Amino acid sequence: MANTISPLHEAPSLAELRATQDAISHLIHRTPVLSSAFFNELSGAKLFFKCENFQKIGAFKMRGAASAALRLSAAEKQKGLATHSSGNHAQAVARVARELGVPSFIVMPENAPASKRAATLGYGAEIITCAATVESRETTLAEVVQRTGATFIHPFNDYNVIAGQATAAIELIEYLDLPLDMMLAPIGGGGLMSGTALATRYLSPNTQVFGTEPLAVDDAQRSLRSGHIETNLTTNTIADGLRTNLGEKTFGILSRTLDEVFTVTEDAIIQAMQLVWERMKIIIEPSSAVPLAAVLSNPAVFKGKRVGIIITGGNVDLAKLPWA
Amino acid sequence: MANTISPLHEAPSLAELRATQDAISHLIHRTPVLSSAFFNELSGAKLFFKCENFQKIGAFKMRGAASAALRLSAAEKQKGLATHSSGNHAQAVARVARELGVPSFIVMPENAPASKRAATLGYGAEIITCAATVESRETTLAEVVQRTGATFIHPFNDYNVIAGQATAAIELIEYLDLPLDMMLAPIGGGGLMSGTALATRYLSPNTQVFGTEPLAVDDAQRSLRSGHIETNLTTNTIADGLRTNLGEKTFGILSRTLDEVFTVTEDAIIQAMQLVWERMKIIIEPSSAVPLAAVLSNPAVFKGKRVGIIITGGNVDLAKLPWA
Repeated sequence: MANTISPLHEAPSLAELRATQDAISHLIHRTPVLSSAFFNELSGAKLFFKCENFQKIGAFKMRGAASAALRLSAAEKQKGLATHSSGNHAQAVARVARELGVPSFIVMPENAPASKRAATLGYGAEIITCAATVESRETTLAEVVQRTGATFIHPFNDYNVIAGQATAAIELIEYLDLPLDMMLAPIGGGGLMSGTALATRYLSPNTQVFGTEPLAVDDAQRSLRSGHIETNLTTNTIADGLRTNLGEKTFGILSRTLDEVFTVTEDAIIQAMQLVWERMKIIIEPSSAVPLAAVLSNPAVFKGKRVGIIITGGNVDLAKLPWA
Repeated sequence: MANTISPLHEAPSLAELRATQDAISHLIHRTPVLSSAFFNELSGAKLFFKCENFQKIGAFKMRGAASAALRLSAAEKQKGLATHSSGNHAQAVARVARELGVPSFIVMPENAPASKRAATLGYGAEIITCAATVESRETTLAEVVQRTGATFIHPFNDYNVIAGQATAAIELIEYLDLPLDMMLAPIGGGGLMSGTALATRYLSPNTQVFGTEPLAVDDAQRSLRSGHIETNLTTNTIADGLRTNLGEKTFGILSRTLDEVFTVTEDAIIQAMQLVWERMKIIIEPSSAVPLAAVLSNPAVFKGKRVGIIITGGNVDLAKLPWA
C-alpha cells in the first residue's frame, strides 16, 4: 500500500519532500546518474548528470504529476486528472492517471504535434482540442473541469507538483559520496528548479544552486533581479520546455533559494545537446542541454567544482534535429 | 600492474577468456545492462541489452583491440599497432595505443568520412590514406608494417581479438540472476559473434546462441548452410558494421557454436533503431539494431524467453539519420 500524503499549501518542508519521495516511488523510475570523462575533461569540472530522460514518459514531469495526483482524495481521484499542455506534462498526467486507474482529460491546442497527441492518447487520455491561444486553452480547461469534476494539475505553479520535482535532486544528492559544490537545473515555469533548490538547500546547504535558461527567454533572471515576475516577449528558443514564465509560487521559492541564474545562447544549447548525443550516446531534449551549456560557456565559474546537473528529458522529434 | 596474457593460436578456452577479462579491465568500461518495459511488452520476451554503445570509443571494438595489444611483447608494443579500417576498429586500435603509450598507424581509404578521420586523429593515430580498393588497402598496410615494425591487429579474424570481444557476453551473463534462454549478437566479420558464442557455450550451456545479420549481406547464414565461406555480392545495407564476410577463424568457431542465424530486412533494422532511440533514449548505430530487429520480426520464436542482446555501438553520423 502506498504511503498517504496530503495536499501542500506552502513550500514543502524536508519531511514533506521525504514523504513525497516514498509515496511516488512505485510510480517512477529511480533514474541513473551518469558521468563522462569527455565532459569532465572539456569543462575541467566533475559533472554528475541525473538522467530524467530515462524516467517514465521520458521526462521528470512524471514525478510532479504523481506527487499531485497521490495527494487527492479517493473521490477526487475517481473523477480524474485534467491539464492543458502539449508537452511532457500532458503525457505525465495521462500516464499517472492510467497507473492509478482513473480518467485523464488533456486540453491541447489544435496545432499540437501529431506525435504528442498520439503519445498522450496512447496513455489512455481523452484529448480536448482548443484554439491555439491562452484564452481558449483556459476557458476550454475550465469547461472540462466543470463537466467532469476532474482536478486540474498545474504544470508547475503548485506546491504538490514542486514537491514531486524535488525528488530528482534528492536522488542525485543521495547517490553521491561527496557533496556537490553546485547544483544546476533549467528554469521554465520554475517547478523543477523550485524543487531542486529546496531539496539542495535542505540536504546539502553548502551547495550553490544555479538556475539556467535560454537568453531568448530570460524571464527568470530578470524576475529575480527586479523582484517581481517578468514575462518573456518571445518564445523563440529551441528549448521548448523553457518558454513559460514563472508563476507566483515558483517565483517566491526561487527568490529565496537561488544563488544565480545563467543565460545561454541558442548556439550553446545546440552545441551542448549535440555533444551529449555524440559523446554520451544518450538522447536529451534541448531544454536538458541548457545547464551543460551554462557550464561550458562559463569555464572559470565551474573549473575544479563538483557539479550536479538535472537532465530533464529526452522527448525529441527525431525527424527534426537542430543540426541536420 | 596488468596481468600478463599470451598470444592465442586457437579458439580461446574459458580460462583464457577469464584471463583476458582480468587483463583488459583497466582499459575498458564495464558497460550497463538495460531493460525496457516498452520492448518487453512489444516482444512478449524479457530483453537484456548489454550496452557497448557506452564503451570507450562508443563500441565493443575496444575490447578486442585491448586483448590483442596486451598479448604483444614489450618490444612489439613499442613499435606500435597498425590496422586498416575506417570505422570503430580504427578508433579502438588508436585509443588502445594511446592508453599504452605506443604509436598507432591506421590505413584509411581516401573516401573515409571526415568525422571518422578526425576521431582517429584525436586519439593520436597516424593516418595513412590509400585508394578505396581492397588491393590498395592491403598493399598500403603491408608497406606500413614493413616501414614501422608495428603489429597488424586484424578487425576480427584473430583469436586474440575474439577473446576480447567475448568479454561483453561474459559481463552480461555475470550480471544476470537467472540464465538466458537465448543470446543474440550481430555478425559482420564474426569477431563479436565468435566471442559471444564461445562465452555463452562455456558459461551458460543451455542458452541458445543466435547470430543475426541484414538480409542484404547474409553471408554468414549462407556460409553455415553450405559449409564453406560464402561472400556477399553487395554491401548495400545501412548496417555498415556488418558488410564484411567471415574469416576462416570466425567461420570455424561459428560453425560449431551457433544454433541459427536470423536475417532481417533494412526496414526492420531502421524501425528497431528508431524505436530504441525514441523509447530507450539511447543512441545506437544501425548494426546494433539488427538483433532487436530479429526479435521483433520473429515474435513466436522469442515470446516468453529471456533474451540477451549485445548492443554493439553508438557511433552514428547525427546529420544523416535514416528516418530524417
